Amino acid sequence: MAVYTEVSDDDLAGFVAGYDVGHLTSFKGIAEGVENTNYLVQTDRGRFILTLYEKRVDSGDLPFFLGLLDHLAARGIPCPTPLRDRSGAMLRELAGRPAALVSFLDGMWVRRPGVAHCRALGTALARLHLAARDYEGHRENALTVPAWRALIDACGDRLEEIEPGLAGELHGELETFERAWPSSLPRGIVHADLFPDNVFFLGEKLVGLIDFYFACTDCLAYDIAICLNAWCFEVDGAFNVTKARALLEAYGRIRPLTEEEFEALPLLARGAAMRFLATRAYDWLNTPANAFVSRKDPMEYVRRLRFHRGVAGTGEYGLDR
Amino acid sequence: MAVYTEVSDDDLAGFVAGYDVGHLTSFKGIAEGVENTNYLVQTDRGRFILTLYEKRVDSGDLPFFLGLLDHLAARGIPCPTPLRDRSGAMLRELAGRPAALVSFLDGMWVRRPGVAHCRALGTALARLHLAARDYEGHRENALTVPAWRALIDACGDRLEEIEPGLAGELHGELETFERAWPSSLPRGIVHADLFPDNVFFLGEKLVGLIDFYFACTDCLAYDIAICLNAWCFEVDGAFNVTKARALLEAYGRIRPLTEEEFEALPLLARGAAMRFLATRAYDWLNTPANAFVSRKDPMEYVRRLRFHRGVAGTGEYGLDR
Repeated sequence: MAVYTEVSDDDLAGFVAGYDVGHLTSFKGIAEGVENTNYLVQTDRGRFILTLYEKRVDSGDLPFFLGLLDHLAARGIPCPTPLRDRSGAMLRELAGRPAALVSFLDGMWVRRPGVAHCRALGTALARLHLAARDYEGHRENALTVPAWRALIDACGDRLEEIEPGLAGELHGELETFERAWPSSLPRGIVHADLFPDNVFFLGEKLVGLIDFYFACTDCLAYDIAICLNAWCFEVDGAFNVTKARALLEAYGRIRPLTEEEFEALPLLARGAAMRFLATRAYDWLNTPANAFVSRKDPMEYVRRLRFHRGVAGTGEYGLDR
Repeated sequence: MAVYTEVSDDDLAGFVAGYDVGHLTSFKGIAEGVENTNYLVQTDRGRFILTLYEKRVDSGDLPFFLGLLDHLAARGIPCPTPLRDRSGAMLRELAGRPAALVSFLDGMWVRRPGVAHCRALGTALARLHLAARDYEGHRENALTVPAWRALIDACGDRLEEIEPGLAGELHGELETFERAWPSSLPRGIVHADLFPDNVFFLGEKLVGLIDFYFACTDCLAYDIAICLNAWCFEVDGAFNVTKARALLEAYGRIRPLTEEEFEALPLLARGAAMRFLATRAYDWLNTPANAFVSRKDPMEYVRRLRFHRGVAGTGEYGLDR
C-alpha cells in the first residue's frame, strides 16, 4: 500500500494530454495495491486511475491484462476500462515505468462480507468466466502446483518457525496435489485473486471487480475455490456454509458446474489454500518483521487447508448435487 | 506518506452518516501528509478529505487548527473547510483517533515553481495573514529558537557525521539567534510550513493552501522567511532573486512590510533555515536509513543558512526599500 514511483505535475500533465480526457484538475497517490503505484487522476471530464507498473509485474504480461480488461468491460463486466490514447495505445510509459490510465470505479470493499455479498460475488464470477470465453489472450498460471513446491522448498526447515511439524505436513500436501491435481476440468480465464479487497460494493450491489494482475488461464472452478477460501471463513476461523452455499448457488445459476467440477471442489479449495499459504509463508520468512510491507499470517491458510482436507464431500460446502 | 490507521467500510459509513453530505460512494486512502492518515471520501454530493490525527499531532491543538481553517475559509482563503456534523461539531472520533472531515480542494502542487507561482504565493500569504488577524485562537510556536537549541543539543557530536565542523558552526548560529532574534515585529497567525507541497495550483492560479498543522502565533515576516527558503532556491542550490522579488513584491502590495520587518528579513531567513535543518538533522541521525519514512538531507538547509548569513542586506532578496 504505497506510492513507489513519484510523478511530477509536469510529467503527469504531459501524459494526460495524450488522451482525450479533458484538463487535469487534481491527482493524488492512493494507498491501494501492493504491487503497483496508483494515482487517482481527476479532470474536468471525470475520474480515472493511473497505474504505474512496478517491477513485480512482468511487463510482458501487460498487454494480456489490459486486453482482458478491455474485452471484459466491452461485455459489461464492471471492471476498470483501459483508456486508449490519441494513437490508440492502452499501454504507455511514465516516469520510467509502463503505465495505463483506466476508468474509475465507484464502490467500497467490504471488510465483513455477508451472505448477500457472497451471492453477488458468485453471480459476478460466473459472468466474468463466461465473458472471457472468447478472449484470445493466454497466460499460464505462474502460481500453480510446481510453484507451490518451489516456494515451500525455498522455505525449507524454517517452516518449523511458523509451526512445529508444518514442513512435513506441507510436503505431504504437495505430494497429494502432484498426484491428484485435476487436469481435465473446464478451463478459461480466471481472476485468481478475487479477495474482498478486489470487489467493490455499494450496499449489497456489486459494482466493481479490480486488480486482474494475477489473471491467467486455469480451471474455472479453481477461481471458485479461491473465493470459498477468501470469502467464506469467519474471523474466528469457522467456515460459514451459508455464505458458501449462496456463492455456489449464484454461480451455478449463471454457469452450472459439471459433475467433475463439483466433485473436485474440496481438492481445489485445499489447493487454493496451499497457494496462498505458500506465498504467505515465503514472505513471512523473508520479510523483516519491521519492514514497511505488512506480512500476512500464513497460519490462517494452513487452518483453511486443514478444513478442506477434512471435508468428506462437496455437500459440506452447502450444495447438494 | 501513508495510511497509518485503517478504517472499515462500516465504520466510515457510520461516521459519514453523522454529516449532511449525502451517501458514501467511494473512499481511498491517499498518500499525502506525513503526520496524519488521509482518505479521499466521495459521496453522491461531493468530495471530501477525512483526516485521522495520528500521535505526532497534539490533540489539544486540534480545536485551534480546525477553528483557524473555519475562520479562514469563511474569509475567502482557499483552504480546506471543516464540515460540521449534525450536532455542530468539527472534531469527532473514528477508529480510535480524533478525526475531521474537510472540503476537497482541486489543484496540484508544483514540483518546480516559477516566478508566477512565487508571485501568487506572496499574494496568498499576505491575504492569509490579514484574514487571520481577528482569529481568537492562539498557539505558541513550538519550533522556535529554544526548540532549535534542544534539537541541535540532542544531535550532539553526531552532527559531525553529517559534515565535519557542523556542530561548532550550528552552536555559533544558535548563539546569534539567542542574542539577536527579533521580538518586536508585527505578530499574528503564521502557517509556518508553506512549502510547495502545501500549495495547490491550476496552471499559474493558486487555488489551495493546505496542511495548517504547524500554524501558530509568531512574527508574520517569519512566514515570509520560510517561503524564501522553500520556494526561491533552485535544485542546484542557487538563490533565485527574481522569484524572491516576485514573492516579496506581491506580499507587500497586500500587506506592506514595516521598516523593521524589512531589515530583519536576512536574520529571519537564516533562522527559518535553522528551523528546518534542526528537525532534518535530528530525524537524519535518529531514523534508520532503511526505514519507510524518507529522510530529508539536512545539508540542503545548512547551505541555505550559509547563504542568508552572507547576505549584506535585504536588497539581495531583490527588493530595495
